[in-house]
Amino acid sequence: MEKLQALLPILNWGGDYRKDDFRADVIAGVVVLFITVPQVIAYAFLAGLPPEAGLHAALAALVAYAAFGSSRTLAVGPTAIIAMMTLEVASSFATPGTQDYATVTVKLGLVTGIVLLVLRLVNFGNVISFLSHAVVTGFITAAAILIITNQLPAVVGLSSSADTSVVGVLSYLSDNTVNVVALIVAATAIVLLVFCRLQMEKLLLSMGLGQVLASALARSAPMYVVIIGILVTAFLGLNETHQVPIVGTIPTALPGLALVPLSLTELRDLLPSALLIAMVIFMESASIGTAMASRRREKIQPNQELVGLSFSNMGASLVGGFPVAGSFARTVVNFSSGAHTQMASLITALLVLITLVGFAPLFYYLPKAVLSAIIVISAMQLIDITVIRKIFSFNSTDAVTFTFTFVAVLVLGVESGVIIGIVISFVLLIRSSSRPHIAVVGRVGDSEHFRNIRRHEVITSPSLLAVRIDESLYFVNTRYIETFLFNEVADKPDIKNVLLICTATNFIDASGLEMLEALCENLEEVGVTLHLAEVKGPVMDRLKETDFYHRMEGEVFFTTDLAFKKLAGI
Amino acid sequence: MEKLQALLPILNWGGDYRKDDFRADVIAGVVVLFITVPQVIAYAFLAGLPPEAGLHAALAALVAYAAFGSSRTLAVGPTAIIAMMTLEVASSFATPGTQDYATVTVKLGLVTGIVLLVLRLVNFGNVISFLSHAVVTGFITAAAILIITNQLPAVVGLSSSADTSVVGVLSYLSDNTVNVVALIVAATAIVLLVFCRLQMEKLLLSMGLGQVLASALARSAPMYVVIIGILVTAFLGLNETHQVPIVGTIPTALPGLALVPLSLTELRDLLPSALLIAMVIFMESASIGTAMASRRREKIQPNQELVGLSFSNMGASLVGGFPVAGSFARTVVNFSSGAHTQMASLITALLVLITLVGFAPLFYYLPKAVLSAIIVISAMQLIDITVIRKIFSFNSTDAVTFTFTFVAVLVLGVESGVIIGIVISFVLLIRSSSRPHIAVVGRVGDSEHFRNIRRHEVITSPSLLAVRIDESLYFVNTRYIETFLFNEVADKPDIKNVLLICTATNFIDASGLEMLEALCENLEEVGVTLHLAEVKGPVMDRLKETDFYHRMEGEVFFTTDLAFKKLAGI
Repeated sequence: MEKLQALLPILNWGGDYRKDDFRADVIAGVVVLFITVPQVIAYAFLAGLPPEAGLHAALAALVAYAAFGSSRTLAVGPTAIIAMMTLEVASSFATPGTQDYATVTVKLGLVTGIVLLVLRLVNFGNVISFLSHAVVTGFITAAAILIITNQLPAVVGLSSSADTSVVGVLSYLSDNTVNVVALIVAATAIVLLVFCRLQMEKLLLSMGLGQVLASALARSAPMYVVIIGILVTAFLGLNETHQVPIVGTIPTALPGLALVPLSLTELRDLLPSALLIAMVIFMESASIGTAMASRRREKIQPNQELVGLSFSNMGASLVGGFPVAGSFARTVVNFSSGAHTQMASLITALLVLITLVGFAPLFYYLPKAVLSAIIVISAMQLIDITVIRKIFSFNSTDAVTFTFTFVAVLVLGVESGVIIGIVISFVLLIRSSSRPHIAVVGRVGDSEHFRNIRRHEVITSPSLLAVRIDESLYFVNTRYIETFLFNEVADKPDIKNVLLICTATNFIDASGLEMLEALCENLEEVGVTLHLAEVKGPVMDRLKETDFYHRMEGEVFFTTDLAFKKLAGI
Repeated sequence: MEKLQALLPILNWGGDYRKDDFRADVIAGVVVLFITVPQVIAYAFLAGLPPEAGLHAALAALVAYAAFGSSRTLAVGPTAIIAMMTLEVASSFATPGTQDYATVTVKLGLVTGIVLLVLRLVNFGNVISFLSHAVVTGFITAAAILIITNQLPAVVGLSSSADTSVVGVLSYLSDNTVNVVALIVAATAIVLLVFCRLQMEKLLLSMGLGQVLASALARSAPMYVVIIGILVTAFLGLNETHQVPIVGTIPTALPGLALVPLSLTELRDLLPSALLIAMVIFMESASIGTAMASRRREKIQPNQELVGLSFSNMGASLVGGFPVAGSFARTVVNFSSGAHTQMASLITALLVLITLVGFAPLFYYLPKAVLSAIIVISAMQLIDITVIRKIFSFNSTDAVTFTFTFVAVLVLGVESGVIIGIVISFVLLIRSSSRPHIAVVGRVGDSEHFRNIRRHEVITSPSLLAVRIDESLYFVNTRYIETFLFNEVADKPDIKNVLLICTATNFIDASGLEMLEALCENLEEVGVTLHLAEVKGPVMDRLKETDFYHRMEGEVFFTTDLAFKKLAGI
């Protein structure tokens, strides 16, 4: 039973589910619907797909995640970033708008689902985050700019530009006649959305509404602009009198099974992109899920998240959708509307289904300019100046990584950009650990504390060189450390003992051991003895098995204090 | 003056050079000659080049390094590994034995010299060692096997095999008729070399000779087998009666300037291989140089080494030689024969020049089988079973890296093999730091020491979770750490304070900071406060500038002791 619960997290909360939980979940499920419908239609549009693709994907993803996901509040479905990545990948195989293109996105969803499951099998959830905060921020900021640029033609009532680069879109705009009415519609929608975002909650609160209700109503802004957009367009007949592009007919039907045959060649072609998309999906979803879970002392199982997201993507693909991820906006709404369990997502899914079957025709007059407005506002929210400023002020390595990723994504596209960012972040990481911080330390007064002689007033002895190496001893830094120590010893002929304080030495590899042996041997030739102190348990376990440990003349001290007393008498 | 001394280390010792130094250097210079001449002729043969290429390369390299190198005892010239790499690279451009082939090796030496100088300009000497001990050992062991295989045809009197893979050589051997006399010559030489290596020094000592002389005589073994080989072959006329291949005519002349024109295309073609060769040259030479220098409290400047090696390679190329490096065997002989300065190398160089001009014809009858014997014995000394055993017993990551590198070099060749080894070592490195060791700690008795609750009897409090994270906080491990802490807090509802002990946190990147912020905020939501202790100076400096530091409710404690007293009253 416990094993089954681990595989199907729905059983965890399904067992002791109460009336109270249901009441809370119903409220959250309904509230989330109002942001889900406009967003997923908009993101389908962003991905170059018809509205139903977004609704179908959301429906399947919500149900699959509810059964297999480990977060109780994550809302899964189409998101702006993943829609943008889908557009970039699928465009290189087919022309957006065609049936072939839709088929490619369905296959991409399937391959992404498969990749996520394979990542689960290799225990990826517990292994590495390849994407540093700087890479992610650079990538998301640049992707947001690409998304906004990509929507500019739709904002002014044009069809998409063939050249999706920033320069291409701008020249496309200048070469074509703008539909002023569409632009007015989009601009009005944007103003409304910004107003709701910034002022509506305060306004409602001042009118005496409760916090939860006011927040929920404010966050449903996309639904209002959709409704207003539909009504205005329908009554004024803007689509006919002023050629404002509209969404048109959405099939009023249950999603059918889209069982697309996937050839090995296609699998191979889609695999690299799917791997990158899967990593971004996992990274986004896991971080949102973890943040929400921790606020209620709930747990997230990273590997189970991979399963939940895998089935969500395969499910979305099965009903003709495209890749999905945990949505930040919808998850926050779900959480703050008080969702207790994934039952809330099931209710949202049910309501999406009802919308599909019963209300799809109502979206006929929805202007595409309104969808673009929703996308532009969502994308602008992805650009977080505070985070960027933090990256630049905190760590210069991260600033370099951010800049490279940002520029690379803008110039070369999302895929190449992210890969360049990942490579740079690792190169810089290794570079920094190759020149570790090394502190020569002394005793603070007559305490048991030892600090850097350059930063604190400390007591030292000319015959003892006590150094704390703030890094593990391994191949990228052994030569640097060795050179540092030899040069110190060569400069100070009084030194008789060298003490390495290993508080920050988390592991020693064969290069590190070799370095210690050479160090020990060569120092002994000139009458200097090497000692160690504060070696950590796991490191000591390995060290005890080596010849070096048994041959070394010096001692391994439990504490720096004992070493100073014995070696320097201070 | 000091600046000039840094650029031209010869000025360092040139100034206060004494009679005593000169006496020591002359002895060492002469002793080194006896091992240099046979070795460099043999390594030229290994590289697919005529004997004079080795002598010319050694001559130029010794002089150039004496002027520009920072080690006082390093002996530079052709080495087995670099000769093998030269053969592999140059063979892909031309057929060994042809003039074109010789030209390629000269160009390779030039490009390698340029690369070394560029590495100096980017401060590579102080930056990264890409090559872990496991990669180097795997590479050298496999290269030694390749060298031995490569020499088998020559040992049995055949010309080189066209297919240089292990399988290729073996099938070549079985397809051709062995020259039994050549095999006997080679076998006798091998037995003699092994005898000298293992027994001669003891024998001479027991005969009452001094340690230094006995050791020098024993190490000159290659010279004896060369002399014996020449005499036997000449007097018995083995080259004519039994077709034993001999070295033949070596031009009795000063090396001319080989000013080969290098096109941009050639530069580009040779660059990747030259980069790898340059890295191996630097790695080998710097480690030998450092080991020798440290035994006399002398210093090595890694960047100056790059300059010395760069000019050595360019010099070797200029006189028609091939890439050179610091030779382990010849450096040890130089050091143990008492060389004080690079004057010893200049004397060796002068004697090589005299050999070239005066004694080159004497090598006419030298059987190639003897050269092969010298190479085989040198290569066997590169295989160090003790080191391999150490790698396997100490660290499983290194064992994996060693095995992959070893197999890859054997199967795919030196270049691809080393690159695969480097990639694997970095991937494993990052993988291990993505799941850092995290210890929940408690107080040892009433001391100021805190240790892992799983390893020691310690005092803890149910309201305080004190963890020591044995790694820096950065993007590859933030999620792992975050998940660990949230799960601990979710499991133990009594926890009111979380203390992160940062003794091993050497840096925090933007992802780490983001994680700390999220951790702090989300823990506060559930009434748990996050505190830090023992934050290192450089880390604290950065942290103080952040909003996080000013906003966090918890404290930053100077020591874990203070934190335990305040937070848990224990």
